[in-house]
Amino acid sequence: MASRTPSWLRWPVGRPHAIAFGADYNPEQWPRETWDEDVRLMRGAGVNVVSLGIFSWARIQPARDRWEFEWLDEAVELLHGNGIAVDLATASASPPPWLASQHPEILPVNAQGEVIWPGARQHWRPTSPVFREHALRLVTAMGERYGTHPAVCAWHVSNELGCHNVYDYSDDAAAAFRGWLRGRYGSLEALNAAWGTDFWAQRYGDWEEILPPRLTATHPNPTQQLDFKRFSSDALKDYLRAERQILQRLSPEVPVTTNFMVMGETKGMDYAGWADEVDFVSNDHYITPGRQDLDELSFSANLTGNIAGGRPWFLMEHSTSAVNWQPINIPKKPGALARDSLTHVAHGADAVCFFQWRQSRAGAEKYHSAMVPHAGPDSSVFRDVVALGQTLDRLKPVLGSGRERARIAILFEWDSWWASEMDSHPTDRLRYRSEALNWYSAFLANGIRADVLPVSAPFDGYQLVVAPILHVVPEDLRQRITAFVESGGHLVTTYFSGIVDQNDHVWLGGYPGAFRKLLGIRIEEFGPLPDNAQIPLDNGRPGRLWADQVEVISPDVDVLHRFAAGTCEGRPAVTRRALESGSASYVATALGPDGLRRLAAELSGLAGIAPDLPAELRGNVELTVRTDGRRRFLFLINRTDKKVDISGIRGRILAGAIEEEAGKLEERGVAVIECVP
Amino acid sequence: MASRTPSWLRWPVGRPHAIAFGADYNPEQWPRETWDEDVRLMRGAGVNVVSLGIFSWARIQPARDRWEFEWLDEAVELLHGNGIAVDLATASASPPPWLASQHPEILPVNAQGEVIWPGARQHWRPTSPVFREHALRLVTAMGERYGTHPAVCAWHVSNELGCHNVYDYSDDAAAAFRGWLRGRYGSLEALNAAWGTDFWAQRYGDWEEILPPRLTATHPNPTQQLDFKRFSSDALKDYLRAERQILQRLSPEVPVTTNFMVMGETKGMDYAGWADEVDFVSNDHYITPGRQDLDELSFSANLTGNIAGGRPWFLMEHSTSAVNWQPINIPKKPGALARDSLTHVAHGADAVCFFQWRQSRAGAEKYHSAMVPHAGPDSSVFRDVVALGQTLDRLKPVLGSGRERARIAILFEWDSWWASEMDSHPTDRLRYRSEALNWYSAFLANGIRADVLPVSAPFDGYQLVVAPILHVVPEDLRQRITAFVESGGHLVTTYFSGIVDQNDHVWLGGYPGAFRKLLGIRIEEFGPLPDNAQIPLDNGRPGRLWADQVEVISPDVDVLHRFAAGTCEGRPAVTRRALESGSASYVATALGPDGLRRLAAELSGLAGIAPDLPAELRGNVELTVRTDGRRRFLFLINRTDKKVDISGIRGRILAGAIEEEAGKLEERGVAVIECVP
Amino acid sequence: MASRTPSWLRWPVGRPHAIAFGADYNPEQWPRETWDEDVRLMRGAGVNVVSLGIFSWARIQPARDRWEFEWLDEAVELLHGNGIAVDLATASASPPPWLASQHPEILPVNAQGEVIWPGARQHWRPTSPVFREHALRLVTAMGERYGTHPAVCAWHVSNELGCHNVYDYSDDAAAAFRGWLRGRYGSLEALNAAWGTDFWAQRYGDWEEILPPRLTATHPNPTQQLDFKRFSSDALKDYLRAERQILQRLSPEVPVTTNFMVMGETKGMDYAGWADEVDFVSNDHYITPGRQDLDELSFSANLTGNIAGGRPWFLMEHSTSAVNWQPINIPKKPGALARDSLTHVAHGADAVCFFQWRQSRAGAEKYHSAMVPHAGPDSSVFRDVVALGQTLDRLKPVLGSGRERARIAILFEWDSWWASEMDSHPTDRLRYRSEALNWYSAFLANGIRADVLPVSAPFDGYQLVVAPILHVVPEDLRQRITAFVESGGHLVTTYFSGIVDQNDHVWLGGYPGAFRKLLGIRIEEFGPLPDNAQIPLDNGRPGRLWADQVEVISPDVDVLHRFAAGTCEGRPAVTRRALESGSASYVATALGPDGLRRLAAELSGLAGIAPDLPAELRGNVELTVRTDGRRRFLFLINRTDKKVDISGIRGRILAGAIEEEAGKLEERGVAVIECVP
Repeated sequence: MASRTPSWLRWPVGRPHAIAFGADYNPEQWPRETWDEDVRLMRGAGVNVVSLGIFSWARIQPARDRWEFEWLDEAVELLHGNGIAVDLATASASPPPWLASQHPEILPVNAQGEVIWPGARQHWRPTSPVFREHALRLVTAMGERYGTHPAVCAWHVSNELGCHNVYDYSDDAAAAFRGWLRGRYGSLEALNAAWGTDFWAQRYGDWEEILPPRLTATHPNPTQQLDFKRFSSDALKDYLRAERQILQRLSPEVPVTTNFMVMGETKGMDYAGWADEVDFVSNDHYITPGRQDLDELSFSANLTGNIAGGRPWFLMEHSTSAVNWQPINIPKKPGALARDSLTHVAHGADAVCFFQWRQSRAGAEKYHSAMVPHAGPDSSVFRDVVALGQTLDRLKPVLGSGRERARIAILFEWDSWWASEMDSHPTDRLRYRSEALNWYSAFLANGIRADVLPVSAPFDGYQLVVAPILHVVPEDLRQRITAFVESGGHLVTTYFSGIVDQNDHVWLGGYPGAFRKLLGIRIEEFGPLPDNAQIPLDNGRPGRLWADQVEVISPDVDVLHRFAAGTCEGRPAVTRRALESGSASYVATALGPDGLRRLAAELSGLAGIAPDLPAELRGNVELTVRTDGRRRFLFLINRTDKKVDISGIRGRILAGAIEEEAGKLEERGVAVIECVP
Repeated sequence: MASRTPSWLRWPVGRPHAIAFGADYNPEQWPRETWDEDVRLMRGAGVNVVSLGIFSWARIQPARDRWEFEWLDEAVELLHGNGIAVDLATASASPPPWLASQHPEILPVNAQGEVIWPGARQHWRPTSPVFREHALRLVTAMGERYGTHPAVCAWHVSNELGCHNVYDYSDDAAAAFRGWLRGRYGSLEALNAAWGTDFWAQRYGDWEEILPPRLTATHPNPTQQLDFKRFSSDALKDYLRAERQILQRLSPEVPVTTNFMVMGETKGMDYAGWADEVDFVSNDHYITPGRQDLDELSFSANLTGNIAGGRPWFLMEHSTSAVNWQPINIPKKPGALARDSLTHVAHGADAVCFFQWRQSRAGAEKYHSAMVPHAGPDSSVFRDVVALGQTLDRLKPVLGSGRERARIAILFEWDSWWASEMDSHPTDRLRYRSEALNWYSAFLANGIRADVLPVSAPFDGYQLVVAPILHVVPEDLRQRITAFVESGGHLVTTYFSGIVDQNDHVWLGGYPGAFRKLLGIRIEEFGPLPDNAQIPLDNGRPGRLWADQVEVISPDVDVLHRFAAGTCEGRPAVTRRALESGSASYVATALGPDGLRRLAAELSGLAGIAPDLPAELRGNVELTVRTDGRRRFLFLINRTDKKVDISGIRGRILAGAIEEEAGKLEERGVAVIECVP
Repeated sequence: MASRTPSWLRWPVGRPHAIAFGADYNPEQWPRETWDEDVRLMRGAGVNVVSLGIFSWARIQPARDRWEFEWLDEAVELLHGNGIAVDLATASASPPPWLASQHPEILPVNAQGEVIWPGARQHWRPTSPVFREHALRLVTAMGERYGTHPAVCAWHVSNELGCHNVYDYSDDAAAAFRGWLRGRYGSLEALNAAWGTDFWAQRYGDWEEILPPRLTATHPNPTQQLDFKRFSSDALKDYLRAERQILQRLSPEVPVTTNFMVMGETKGMDYAGWADEVDFVSNDHYITPGRQDLDELSFSANLTGNIAGGRPWFLMEHSTSAVNWQPINIPKKPGALARDSLTHVAHGADAVCFFQWRQSRAGAEKYHSAMVPHAGPDSSVFRDVVALGQTLDRLKPVLGSGRERARIAILFEWDSWWASEMDSHPTDRLRYRSEALNWYSAFLANGIRADVLPVSAPFDGYQLVVAPILHVVPEDLRQRITAFVESGGHLVTTYFSGIVDQNDHVWLGGYPGAFRKLLGIRIEEFGPLPDNAQIPLDNGRPGRLWADQVEVISPDVDVLHRFAAGTCEGRPAVTRRALESGSASYVATALGPDGLRRLAAELSGLAGIAPDLPAELRGNVELTVRTDGRRRFLFLINRTDKKVDISGIRGRILAGAIEEEAGKLEERGVAVIECVP
């Protein structure tokens, strides 16, 4: 991270540092008298920070040469006067109508050539010089006016960059893509080689001939597709950098962030590569309904914490209850508001913020829950908010502590995510993040902590590294993985890993080419399975999606499990090659969270890793550990709808409704326990 | 209605008034010799009116300055000479190739920016000045030529206005939308307030910046969406008015109509607001296959009759048997042709017409059934047509009688239909018309007549008013509803009612904001249910889709039913606040036709309304009543595939195959009985 | 076929004629040293022909005025020196980037008006004069350079013409469509009559007004749709002809072909009408996964053989194992590689070629199997390839022999395929090719050989003709069918046959108008069935999709089966009118492969046709016969996963792993037996 300030937030002078607690605040949507009620309620709830101005461009600059800062000045002063710090947006997230109307050339164009019109939000091309000129003019104005204001604790660049506009196929995008490709490849010859353009007569003779992967007659060139994904993420990162540089100049004391979206299937932005561009990492997270919803929440918070390098990070948005953009938006159950918030804290967040403070009466998100709902402060939601504020206050000791590294790392990587899910593959059913999440669920169910780690981070300190569908393996990564195992590490990888290099060229000679020797196995053809087909392993667990025909080629390979039916009957399903101290295992099928639960226990046992939790808590309670080097803070998250007995855990209870004598943690409750080793 | 003529159709001089019986007639598709067979068969079948010229623009005006009326003159004379009246189309429904070719700027554009090309029909922008110029030139020519011809009994403006072109996103539409918005809001400030443009930086600084809700990156502004729906309906109404004004001038003696499409999910046109623009209401109706097909037919006919203010209306199109535009087009069962036709008459239709007279050999609808099918007059269909003509002749006494008001009204409203089904809502599964239809089915099953009433109509004369999903409640409607209850009326409303005002702004303080006090309840959060989830009530009926967490806030509220499981267990599911004489009830979930059957009986009982039919006929027979003030005409429609005993109903039998002694009505049969009270 | 050369391939001088065996070969994707390994492996595998240069345009002509033939010269010489013949592509299949960049007016446009961009392949308008100019310049250059080279055994025009670009809606297409229509109709009056433009006011007054069926508001004119399909097929054929004419001039000794795609749902190209444009027929075929996959393979090979007039043809592409373009791409089971290849030979192929020789490392099809897989020559696939080469060598006696005509023909026709599946029909569930395939499966299951015959071929020599969904019946076809029956032939036809003429105009008077008299039946309305509905026949087999209400109108009609339930209960389901020696049968519902199995046995029995196979082999073994007039070659294809006993078949075994004493053919095995009658 481009860290410039010692402490992560610039708390107002005289304010004690605290876990940040607040929300997006949009006072411009309400009459002035409501503002006074707002700050009164905020103080009552313990709110100490709000994000201001995120969608205020049209208010601040209602016409090309008219600026109206007075209302914003008043809001900033009102908040400051009430001791509430301001995470100030650069306000560039959504261009005002006059800009789109005068400059329709800023509007994105999709692969079908359709213009994305104004009327919602984020209708701008990341690569538009015209948009950038106007947006940076705004950022400059914001920086000049508020850059030294004591209320401003952080800068909030744009908002959810790329949420809707990461893929733009306009002529601006085409020009910028060409520039990016020149930078990557240097010469057309190198690009032609990397893209394999001799297939289907695609050899380029001039840079100007290159296009984004717009609508084509059939599958577009896969390396072009992959590079376009890389470029699109980088183009937004470049834009982020442009805003940041202005703020650094005009407001050198205030840290800069932007809210990532590490959650669910949001996959356009390679956040591991973005972290260096912000002074601290922020994230937005919303629950994905389903059986693994709590696991996914934890997975995302875990990954965010590791993107932040283990340092504290900022939960910029989540919801008090229902959202508005899913097909069916279910409100949260009692206790879930606090549990979800504290799960983020458990994974290193030193801030808990919501979208948004007061639920809108109008507009596209009026049915999105908020801290103050339509029903007003006399409501369960607001009472839960107030209680959460008190809990966070009790957690002040945690502040600034980092994540305690686990013994297991699950590698996560955008290149493999993008590449493994492309078209023209053995199966279009494969889901990269779901396989990674299933491994995470498996360790959770075994009561073993695991880190979700960007592949770019050093993983040599871990005992066990799981690399699910690590599809894209350049030579240097192949060497890092090999060195890890050879120096005593335990590796587990899966089907469709180690298949291609950074240009999506297949490692030849038998799959998985990059790891064939390391794993001691060889596969001649991929084994995707039809929908609804399942092949049982000899332990009774069904394999789905995929079943490689594994051939063992090294004598030191143990076959841990075999397929027990089908065309693969008797063939290895799970292999393990034991080296002197390390090992390299391969899982040839998708076992899902249930099948992996058992296998994860077996493989971590073989790697000498025992569970972190007593048997009765495994799966029922999630354990995380934060530490400042001196003290350890245990977070125990009750994942069930029943009370659980945590009386065996020793330490000072910082928070958590626990029955005194019985030591029982309430359903969906979270206990935070400080212990000194 | 813009009634100008005393009698609704101008029957040719000397012809006795009769229930109109006929079809669209397209002689231009057939050789001249076929015309003679046509009129011969028409006379034999009792056909007394046909709609002529609906798609004849290209024949009448084959080039910009060439007019060919001779063939039409001949057809009009031939019909007139055979005593068949002509409902003459203005022929503007589908522009000829030369017009689209010379003026592609008349072609609609969809939200994705795609042009809607010629090759089918209705490829014109409702707001195109160029289209209007040419279409009105045609209407003028038609009016001048035929405006005083004695054969012409009515003018048929265009055809199914808006069936395919109600939503146009072209630049013409944008310009007209701006004009409409200026008219509605007067100032940009008012528009910005109404649209809540401070959300997502959408504040407009100039009218020219405003656009239709074209393709956007995410959910477009909901009030913009709602206003665009209102505008689009109004734009077509404005076009209708333009044609009508010409006809009024050139043909003052002939009434003007246009065929509505009150049926199924056709929802773009707010017909309740169109009725004033026609001299009499016409409707097209086609069966929607499914379990509630007969209910839906009755519902649509009922609503059409009430849009017509209870006065007679014109069934302009329905089908003798299968249609061609559904995925699978099943022919009608024996008896259904007559039963469907007479159900419309039962709800006030004084005309029974079909699309079309003779089934086409070629073209997009050649597999749509007609009065004379491909098989020719020697066919079951044609024999049924002849029999129907005879039945209608026996029903002449009914002619001109109106609908007898029921004691129950189900309110129906386009604003709530449009708004409640928009995106970004608690659930996208909600279907407004389906909930209304389910209540209608429930009363049908209980043998209780109910009117389906546009909300703009006066409802103070009813004993019980059901307002399903009355989502949009402006202040004046809130007052009307409140006054109705306070003056002794009984109100039943449901989930997601009373939520927003006319600008789609939420009524604050707890749901349902507009009716919270009236109902004596308060809800903090919406309770949408996942697919396939159902929560039983204490009467065993399953609630689906939605389950509000209702809190009773007034001591005079009775909880009629509670949820018996789930997170809502023990919570009120149906409440009823009894005032001095009136009451206000709330249903917090979707019970479907079966669940509502029992509840409708209970609630109408509490309102003092007894069934109109003896127990054994309820659900098996639909009863409607027409009256001319002096006589009552009972229509008994056998909804079953068995004979039913209607011997208990006294009166003079006008029609209906009833066994003499047993008093049994044939399966799928209809009996019409005249009685003098 | 435009046959110019006596032998079909021009084998290099001195090389013995053989069954061609090889693949697409793309040396430009590999370093030069790999080429040497390639030819070495090819020789070892018995490869004697490769297709070269298919996607080499960008390599051969890297810029408008730069030509680079040297690498291709070297490849041709290397192959020639190793005795491998070259099927030389004209290389025009996919235009190079520079051409699309300099001439975007060659890019196709879809019905929605979206441009099809470069980045994949085949992004050219079949009707573009600019594309044609450049492509033919390339073809001329190829012809001039290689037209007399002794290595070249055939010319391969373009590649899979129309695979992705058959339907283009651009202005070029519009202009060419108008030209084609002028040729077809001569006058606008004739076109207006044929298209039925009096429906929906579509009457054209000028040729320039006519458009392709672009996106419309509702169903476009069906005859316009049908003619656009005919035109689109013809436009590609015209382009094929243009390439061929150049090659004929420059390379008169070398036969010309292009690879058809007779397979699955590929339906845009009327290959029966294309065969005259090539010197020999080639085909590409890929398995469609599913229950009838083997039947479909046989059906396609059979039809291809009959498109080739019974003469030998060239299997240009199929796969050694998995493909890459299906949602899930399953590799082939052991034995399937050879069985699939030999099934084509069994139906007349004298060539077995694959896409492609060496599996690509990069590009859109890198996961498509090849002769040399990613795993290299040390692999099951390559060992199977080598074994297949040896088998083909043993089959040399078969070379040049033709198909032996079966006694049964199943008529197949593109017009009926296109027309019967159009919109606005009784049901959109009908699938033309599936019904034809089901009949084919039925005969296969009965051990009776049947030819799949283009309707344009003479069918008067067959005993039994099945015409499934023969929907489009012009007067001349009606006469041919009638004459066939009246001269003693047996006809079976089905629901939705004989309905329209060549203009999609309904034959009036009752269905099926074209065959009503011949069949002695009459139907008033179509009987499509809802999804999941089935009506049992009196033989217990369920009818689905359709159930006509058949009325017998001729006394000589036997009702073979009746419906046993539903609204059709007791109505005829299968009728048969016996003439003096011939007969005409009608099947009023879709019986599926199982139901048709029994019926096919019954109907062929009545026609005096006994099975070709003993009872125990029927369904388990497919039998085909090739003959050179002197000898017969029986192909016995084991369709099961078990050994089958074929010891009863006498003759000299050319190939096939058969146990010596037991006479058992291995699972998925193929035996080829020569016998002299």
